[in-house]
Amino acid sequence: MRATVIHGPRDIRLEQVPDPQLSGTGRDAIVHVVAACVCGSDLWPYRGAEPVDHQVMGHEYVGVVQEVGSAVRTVKVGDFVVGSFWASDNTCEICRAGYQAYCVHRVLMGTIGTQSELARIPLADGTLVATPGQPDPELIPSLMAASDVLGTGWFAAVAAEAGPGKTVAVVGDGAVGLLGVLAARQLGAQRIIAFSRHADRQALARRFGATDIVTERGDAGVEKVKELTGGLGAHSVIEAVGTQEAMMQAIHSTRPGGHVGFVGVSHDVAIPGDELFMSGVHIHGGPAPVRRFLPELIQLIWDRTIDPGKVFDLTLPLDQAAEGYEAMDQRTATKVLLTL
Amino acid sequence: MRATVIHGPRDIRLEQVPDPQLSGTGRDAIVHVVAACVCGSDLWPYRGAEPVDHQVMGHEYVGVVQEVGSAVRTVKVGDFVVGSFWASDNTCEICRAGYQAYCVHRVLMGTIGTQSELARIPLADGTLVATPGQPDPELIPSLMAASDVLGTGWFAAVAAEAGPGKTVAVVGDGAVGLLGVLAARQLGAQRIIAFSRHADRQALARRFGATDIVTERGDAGVEKVKELTGGLGAHSVIEAVGTQEAMMQAIHSTRPGGHVGFVGVSHDVAIPGDELFMSGVHIHGGPAPVRRFLPELIQLIWDRTIDPGKVFDLTLPLDQAAEGYEAMDQRTATKVLLTL
Repeated sequence: MRATVIHGPRDIRLEQVPDPQLSGTGRDAIVHVVAACVCGSDLWPYRGAEPVDHQVMGHEYVGVVQEVGSAVRTVKVGDFVVGSFWASDNTCEICRAGYQAYCVHRVLMGTIGTQSELARIPLADGTLVATPGQPDPELIPSLMAASDVLGTGWFAAVAAEAGPGKTVAVVGDGAVGLLGVLAARQLGAQRIIAFSRHADRQALARRFGATDIVTERGDAGVEKVKELTGGLGAHSVIEAVGTQEAMMQAIHSTRPGGHVGFVGVSHDVAIPGDELFMSGVHIHGGPAPVRRFLPELIQLIWDRTIDPGKVFDLTLPLDQAAEGYEAMDQRTATKVLLTL
Repeated sequence: MRATVIHGPRDIRLEQVPDPQLSGTGRDAIVHVVAACVCGSDLWPYRGAEPVDHQVMGHEYVGVVQEVGSAVRTVKVGDFVVGSFWASDNTCEICRAGYQAYCVHRVLMGTIGTQSELARIPLADGTLVATPGQPDPELIPSLMAASDVLGTGWFAAVAAEAGPGKTVAVVGDGAVGLLGVLAARQLGAQRIIAFSRHADRQALARRFGATDIVTERGDAGVEKVKELTGGLGAHSVIEAVGTQEAMMQAIHSTRPGGHVGFVGVSHDVAIPGDELFMSGVHIHGGPAPVRRFLPELIQLIWDRTIDPGKVFDLTLPLDQAAEGYEAMDQRTATKVLLTL
């Protein structure tokens, strides 16, 4: 089969590799990938910030089940499925508490690769969720989004306790931040403040439910949120960037007793203990347990209640994956969909 | 009146100062202090870690109302009252959300001083809670504890979401940590692991409800908690120290999706963003909104359901306050009660 392989910084190639095989556990599925995408986190190795050596790429995927192990019970050959970027058994104590990204048997899909024609999914019963039927093609981007960026934005909104009567602020106008806006709206937030300086992302944020746009950043951005909230700060703040400035902007934009949900992959962030102590906020985040939310998200997409696929602003065939990486790196695209 | 004044590091004196007067707001009370105490946080200025210059000391107090402003409605002259170390209006949006330590009109009692014969309490209606009657003398230490150390340990346990079926670990065997154990037990925790190396504190932890004692610290302590919890970590962890080691020990002792409640006043703590991200824990803490819990805590003490006063292992008259500071500093006492 063909798969996307990284040879070194900015060197992405589509190559012929052996087809994946079911392992001996009986719990795998082989999925024929229908769509994959390029994630913001894929840019770290692409930019040379993480060492790489002929590594297969990709961890987001939707597709059709081609083969299942003997112990697989909940998905069958021919099902259209959406999975998370962590394979999980969905039965251990941590999974049952809703933290499938920390399953005691978890496998990171990024180590297997999904920007390819086929993908082996370990722990298929606990990882994959079948759609109610074969989806209309127009639903593919939204189902694709559920695999990671929507699931992550949704988790951030849940971690920030977005809900009725709440004012939610969102730091980060990438795909995850924008879908955090969508999630906050869907969860019933009264007011949603999106931090964004880009006209096209502002427009998408408003489409997804943002009521206010703040263009200032850092302390000036915090002051603006305070102005909009009677001096108190937002009840709920989503941090979807992963930098020190974004984290502190999120903490300082939150009122005492409020909640920060953070899903930006932290790079060189250190939270000063005294500032956290004095802020009185709750902080929760990390890799999203997307599997927790997949059944609900798939249904919302199936029913055309939400349209998260709108975050994809560039669609390319798999054999142009390298162009997709370049567009994400150069910020000419927010989120790239790869089709097969 | 006589009041405790700090002149410089390790220089605590009882001095004659002017009696406090009601301010013009009509919302103060003057309380005749019956008991006060020395707090772990009082040791920071005592040890010279914070600059001081003839500052009045103390922020914990119980006593009898001597005079009230014209607008005070909920306490009256002669009432025995317990207050928090933050004066709060208990009516603003932040107070109503249960975060009275961040009241928009808050006043830090430490700036007024309560290790004195009389104390002016601003915002008396929102700060003071009257006991059901005049307390038996044996209840005074426990009511005194409610003013800060019990309220703080209780908040830590609530922030850590201690409750039925939960395993709770407690980092710190000072007065607050020990009362965190008591709170976790009262909140229904199934198992309570206390970190302690001191036989007397271990004994008190067991009396308050600890089921397991761990003497190891740091990574070794974390490993021990993992061993006791099937490799997963505790559901809830209380951090009641305020150092980097204690904070990381708390985070690493918590299972993914679990909760850290931190009330140790942070000194030189920096939480690495990547470790917090990968841990998947919730963190919440800060100065405890003791006022939220006071009515419930007073009732539990009044009914002899809890006996938090047991944390006081040295009782001195106010005019020996300096000896109390020395005993706390030298760790010959866990918590010092000052009587008037």
